[in-house]
Amino acid sequence: MSLTITDELTGQKIVIAGGGIGGASGALALSLRGADVTLYERAPEFKEVGAGLQIGPHGVKMLEKWGLKDKVFEAGYLPERMQFRDAITTEPILTMDFGEEFQQHYGGRYLVIHRSDLLSILVEAAKEAGAELVNGVQVLGADTKDDGVTVRLEHRADGRAEQVEADLMLAFDGIHSVFRKELVQDEPVPSAYVAYRGTSDLPSDPEMKDLKDVVGYIGPRCHFIQYPLRHGQLLNQVAVFQSPRYLEALTNGTEVPEDWGNNDEFRQAYGHTHEFLQGRLHHMWLDTWWQMADREPLMDWVVSDRVIVMGDAAHPPLQYLASGAVMAMEDAECLALYASQAASDGELVWGDVLREVSGERAPRCARIQTTGRFWGELWHVDGLSRLIRNETFRQAGRASWFPYVDWLWDYDAERREYLQDPAKGELPAELKEWEYNLHKIARLRDGKDEEQITV
Amino acid sequence: MSLTITDELTGQKIVIAGGGIGGASGALALSLRGADVTLYERAPEFKEVGAGLQIGPHGVKMLEKWGLKDKVFEAGYLPERMQFRDAITTEPILTMDFGEEFQQHYGGRYLVIHRSDLLSILVEAAKEAGAELVNGVQVLGADTKDDGVTVRLEHRADGRAEQVEADLMLAFDGIHSVFRKELVQDEPVPSAYVAYRGTSDLPSDPEMKDLKDVVGYIGPRCHFIQYPLRHGQLLNQVAVFQSPRYLEALTNGTEVPEDWGNNDEFRQAYGHTHEFLQGRLHHMWLDTWWQMADREPLMDWVVSDRVIVMGDAAHPPLQYLASGAVMAMEDAECLALYASQAASDGELVWGDVLREVSGERAPRCARIQTTGRFWGELWHVDGLSRLIRNETFRQAGRASWFPYVDWLWDYDAERREYLQDPAKGELPAELKEWEYNLHKIARLRDGKDEEQITV
Repeated sequence: MSLTITDELTGQKIVIAGGGIGGASGALALSLRGADVTLYERAPEFKEVGAGLQIGPHGVKMLEKWGLKDKVFEAGYLPERMQFRDAITTEPILTMDFGEEFQQHYGGRYLVIHRSDLLSILVEAAKEAGAELVNGVQVLGADTKDDGVTVRLEHRADGRAEQVEADLMLAFDGIHSVFRKELVQDEPVPSAYVAYRGTSDLPSDPEMKDLKDVVGYIGPRCHFIQYPLRHGQLLNQVAVFQSPRYLEALTNGTEVPEDWGNNDEFRQAYGHTHEFLQGRLHHMWLDTWWQMADREPLMDWVVSDRVIVMGDAAHPPLQYLASGAVMAMEDAECLALYASQAASDGELVWGDVLREVSGERAPRCARIQTTGRFWGELWHVDGLSRLIRNETFRQAGRASWFPYVDWLWDYDAERREYLQDPAKGELPAELKEWEYNLHKIARLRDGKDEEQITV
Repeated sequence: MSLTITDELTGQKIVIAGGGIGGASGALALSLRGADVTLYERAPEFKEVGAGLQIGPHGVKMLEKWGLKDKVFEAGYLPERMQFRDAITTEPILTMDFGEEFQQHYGGRYLVIHRSDLLSILVEAAKEAGAELVNGVQVLGADTKDDGVTVRLEHRADGRAEQVEADLMLAFDGIHSVFRKELVQDEPVPSAYVAYRGTSDLPSDPEMKDLKDVVGYIGPRCHFIQYPLRHGQLLNQVAVFQSPRYLEALTNGTEVPEDWGNNDEFRQAYGHTHEFLQGRLHHMWLDTWWQMADREPLMDWVVSDRVIVMGDAAHPPLQYLASGAVMAMEDAECLALYASQAASDGELVWGDVLREVSGERAPRCARIQTTGRFWGELWHVDGLSRLIRNETFRQAGRASWFPYVDWLWDYDAERREYLQDPAKGELPAELKEWEYNLHKIARLRDGKDEEQITV
């Protein structure tokens, strides 16, 4: 690996709170522009929960720009296609080929990679680029001054407090961010869906050994994803379903059970799907499950002239567009790019850069969050809606599905397209009337609305 | 008008019961092959209830074959396009152009015509071709013998009974057919939808004077159709909506009110639609409304070797595919064609002809009936389903909608395609799982099924 380091941000001292994929990307992208970066991660080591992660071509292009192409291609897997199938019949309803035409159109490959592998590569690269990555230290807060920011730290091992001075602080501190609270007092919004995951050895699995694609079985109130990982040695599987107990509590306004989505619910959740899916469920881990949640879009990420929230702290999405990690990488690259451009022009004013970054990134991430909610509901429809949905997918396959994905995968922060037209952050006009079902349920529950609740 | 009369069926005495569009078409098609046809209609004159009627290119080709092209084009209207719009937003979601490409593809124009105008033209043509059309006489029954059929009549004016001998009897006696009862003891199936109609002077209507299309506004639980009639001098409007009281009675198993779909329901039914639609509703007739009903498909129409049910007696459809009249015309032409072909080959055995006709026609008409139910449900979906439906329509418009309509409009009984492959009478595989909502409601009401009822 040979990283190319430039000097636009030389002399700028930047602190990053949080050592997930977003924070590590920030450390790398800024170090590559010569900044003096220190990243603090409260956990004793850098690690990611979960298994596989999908990186669209816009993300792969960034990894390439950061000099990591060979590393991630070697660690990950390049699926030939993404295929949606009906979970009841297993009929393929949309096949998205990742071959020549795709690569020419989007200028990059489609990659799947183990979360921990991607994080390791980013962490190593950031270190190689000169960033200091520190474990076991929590960022508690930051006090903005005229000429910089004082970041307050706590060493987790001994509780020792410390303060460091910096020009800028990036809060990549995740969905439970402490810095987001300075902008908005909101809570995560559970989606009523829960994910089970599992990995197994791909070549030894007779049913799956020839899998070369990302395959998503989508069906009423559930879906199931499969793809190879680690250059085809590992099979990644994710089973996501709607929790009846969560939904009931939400609808009736009663207390939500702590263990919603538990193993009992998991065992019931796929009874209406094809037996192939049901057969695959015994490969899942039963001891852990993930309650899927996002937050409402946040349209201003700038905490102060020296502090900004990014990644999941700013825009935790539902997982349906497989864009959480790439959004955080985009945030990192966008900030590094705009700052280095301003510095090259001799006009590096951090407050201005942060506002520009927020102006570009917030509408885009809002669009991804909102579309993710829509996409999830589209996957999980039942009855006549499901048949219509299947036909829409088939039609998109027969014509071209590019128009549906261009907004997501054909993106480069350098174009500043959301700054020029923030309305691009809204759902397309055809979906303006769409209302997130969980919003609707809450409205119906809280109001006197007599409209029937159907999810 | 110059009719071409051939002689394949010369000497065959054929009685037709019922003088609607189907019966008149039968009288014409058979007379044109030289048969000796007598048609009995119990009403004192030939008339049709309702207003406009749509004739697809397959129907127009038949009218052309029967020598009526000039007459029907002069009496009717040739719309430039059919356009579906969303009833809530009025956004056009699918425009089907009836221009050059359409005409080349289907070999005919698309025609709309007043029902009574079409009936008059058919009646006049049948008479000119030599058929005897008798009013005020009801066909009570028919007794099949080895060498023919004795048809029992009653003169409505004085109750006088009469018997006539014939080689064949066609029962075009409508949705309440007495002959259908000999095949199946079923009842009409109300769809929970009701239609209001209205005609007005098109040129004097400032909102509508430029209308050149068939326009259908489709929305949740209702739709609204507009098109010009009588070479553009008349505006035909149809408002169709779901009756909440019918549905409630059906769901709860309580008594259905006689006046379901009444004016009170009509005034409530369009509150959620665009104000343009609401404004048009005062043009509708309030004193009459039509409760929309069909029957379950009937797969054998042959009452005996000398008697067959046809038209609405065999296959009353819902109106959504605008195919009721054309199906009856197809029945008539199919019988006349197969009989004259058999006669030409010196093999006219009526029982064989009837079975061949039923074998070709029953699967096709079943497909139209079933697809009509599906089509109606597709028009009336709400919420997320509506947004997906709109996108499916848009996609079909961007690509080509021909593949969706070929089975309906590209038909010629001469090809005997349903005889060769009766499975063509089933819904396409993609819709196999679809279940008519009224079936589902009845099943849920009668059973102990706990599945939620949503219509």
